[in-house]
Amino acid sequence: MHPLFDCDDPILARAAWSRIAEPADQEAGALVQSLGPSAALRWLFGDRPEPMDERLSRARERWRPRLDGLDPKRELKALARLGGCLLTPEQPGWPSGLDDLGYRAPFSLWVRADRDTALGLGDRLRPAVAIVGTRASTAYGEMVTASIVSDLAERGVAIVSGGAFGIDAAAHRAALAVDGFTVAVMAGGVDRLYPLGNETLLKAVAAAGAVISELPPGAAPRRERFLSRNRLIAAMGAATVVTEAGWRSGSQRTANDAAELLRAVAAVPGPVTAAQSAGCHRLIRQGVATLVTGADEVRELMAPLGLVTLVEPTVGAGPIDGLAPNERLVFDSLPLRRSASLSALVSASGLPTPQVMASLARLERSGRAEQSGGTWRKAKMPANPAEPVR
Amino acid sequence: MHPLFDCDDPILARAAWSRIAEPADQEAGALVQSLGPSAALRWLFGDRPEPMDERLSRARERWRPRLDGLDPKRELKALARLGGCLLTPEQPGWPSGLDDLGYRAPFSLWVRADRDTALGLGDRLRPAVAIVGTRASTAYGEMVTASIVSDLAERGVAIVSGGAFGIDAAAHRAALAVDGFTVAVMAGGVDRLYPLGNETLLKAVAAAGAVISELPPGAAPRRERFLSRNRLIAAMGAATVVTEAGWRSGSQRTANDAAELLRAVAAVPGPVTAAQSAGCHRLIRQGVATLVTGADEVRELMAPLGLVTLVEPTVGAGPIDGLAPNERLVFDSLPLRRSASLSALVSASGLPTPQVMASLARLERSGRAEQSGGTWRKAKMPANPAEPVR
Repeated sequence: MHPLFDCDDPILARAAWSRIAEPADQEAGALVQSLGPSAALRWLFGDRPEPMDERLSRARERWRPRLDGLDPKRELKALARLGGCLLTPEQPGWPSGLDDLGYRAPFSLWVRADRDTALGLGDRLRPAVAIVGTRASTAYGEMVTASIVSDLAERGVAIVSGGAFGIDAAAHRAALAVDGFTVAVMAGGVDRLYPLGNETLLKAVAAAGAVISELPPGAAPRRERFLSRNRLIAAMGAATVVTEAGWRSGSQRTANDAAELLRAVAAVPGPVTAAQSAGCHRLIRQGVATLVTGADEVRELMAPLGLVTLVEPTVGAGPIDGLAPNERLVFDSLPLRRSASLSALVSASGLPTPQVMASLARLERSGRAEQSGGTWRKAKMPANPAEPVR
Repeated sequence: MHPLFDCDDPILARAAWSRIAEPADQEAGALVQSLGPSAALRWLFGDRPEPMDERLSRARERWRPRLDGLDPKRELKALARLGGCLLTPEQPGWPSGLDDLGYRAPFSLWVRADRDTALGLGDRLRPAVAIVGTRASTAYGEMVTASIVSDLAERGVAIVSGGAFGIDAAAHRAALAVDGFTVAVMAGGVDRLYPLGNETLLKAVAAAGAVISELPPGAAPRRERFLSRNRLIAAMGAATVVTEAGWRSGSQRTANDAAELLRAVAAVPGPVTAAQSAGCHRLIRQGVATLVTGADEVRELMAPLGLVTLVEPTVGAGPIDGLAPNERLVFDSLPLRRSASLSALVSASGLPTPQVMASLARLERSGRAEQSGGTWRKAKMPANPAEPVR
């Protein structure tokens, strides 16, 4: 068999491999990474290969039927017509996170974007967060997604997702809305914007961000390819956030992929009565994901230890905030309406007389207690806006 | 000073100590546990105590003002009039979980309930779950509380809570509704059903279950006493479940008390937009509580390892469930509307011809593939009710 193109061109060779082998084909990954894409291709085209192990022999049987009519140049032209170019690991713009996939790393990325964006994709993804979730999202899930994404995207974090209905679409939309950078990873070729109902959105993503795939134009988005596509989403993000997911959903797979790659994984909780949050709760219960309630907590997960300090919500100071334990006991023993004598307060508080006197003096100074005619009562204070501690 | 009652009666002595020392007073606990309640009391009444360390000397100063007019008999009579009796660690019905509190264990329990219930309280609490939460509950929180409680109470699990508005009230109500056993732990005396707005509910709890306190009748529910009361709720349950809690709330304290006592702690998630779930999310994030979505998961936490097996929700079987990897690849390569030749399927699936043929035969047998004139297509199947895996 003879190739219709120059196998020695690494771009063409990698483009060819992305047609020959299915995504995450580990034998192909190992072969291309050890021999290089061109030598691996020449070996495959050769009619009399050297003796090889059974696994490689079976793989060869799997790849050979796809050599017929293989024409990577035509596919590269198809990509160029859409706007975009092929990105390979040899180029500086290659997203380095993908290398963590080992032999399951993609051979190349078919990037539909403006040329500068495509060639600088790796830089634009530092840092990036993957946001994934169910297609059957609720208004709650979309709202939380939009809230997290807009915070992150405004701070220059790239948003990676899968372009699907529901949570994915909400994530891309929220990123575009704040002029953030967003990447949609397709399970088929980037010429087939899938699903069709998101075509307008995905065109906007391609125009402002990038629509990418490891498969060449024309490749159909198939079930297995959705699953293997998820590993790219996980590998490109420093963290993966699942905002809503059913009990059984692809987002679970993406979260597990991310955890295997030692990426931070986060899940947003929701009502236990919503099937759309069941997958998030499952990931948290399994210890795969950390519960997050907002963008702050996602950034904390992404950041090297100590770089982001979480600010706990502040609540209004109550009348007992800052009181020493004895002052607190005396304060609690003071009546609000009637007045109490010193000895009554000694008995009520269970403190010795000198300490009750000292505490009363401090409470009076801070405006918490009032004295009249030798008896004591609570001073009227503004209501405490925080829920009182029981 | 001379007592107005017989210090040698351990019931009277313990009743007296519950008036003399504030709840969780560790010096009093240590003294009563080492000398016994009667000897400890005689020592306190004595005018010339033996030399003692400074801590005990300060404690004595704190307790002595409360000896004036101390009359435990009168308080026991007040309890008897309400219906109920004093339960002490010497009695077989003492809830053994309280002993885990060490020197912070209560001296006795003032139990408002029918006599048999009061004297058999410990048995009725095996097993028990504490359910706590915010007073400012939402309809969601009350619904989830009722759902968890009615499942547990129907299976004979006692429900312990604090009798407050909101989640506590929802828990007691749900337990009563299924004729379950429920206990309300008061922060003041059991004659003062607090809050007044729950008086009818708490009377029903006293009639069917028990209203209890470590403080004698007449004692006012004070801030510090709410906090110390929470440790009793935590200690009596095998697990503590927080169904809704604000960022800053007493339920956090109960959950932390339970964790310190090595009890299982669970929290129910909710919308991140609800302030009433913020405390639950915080407990889960801090690793204090395990996320639970229903009674099954609470029972799993309570049970000794392996006694409760969780059944994962079943979803309808999809067309690819149970398929071997190769069959799955071939199935995914089959067109739905047109038909495909064997060689097209070999190329599309990336599998060798013999394996494609074998897979097609198996797919045809299981009704997933149809053949006509040497070409193949997907068979029409009932829709998959589960969310499709992406």
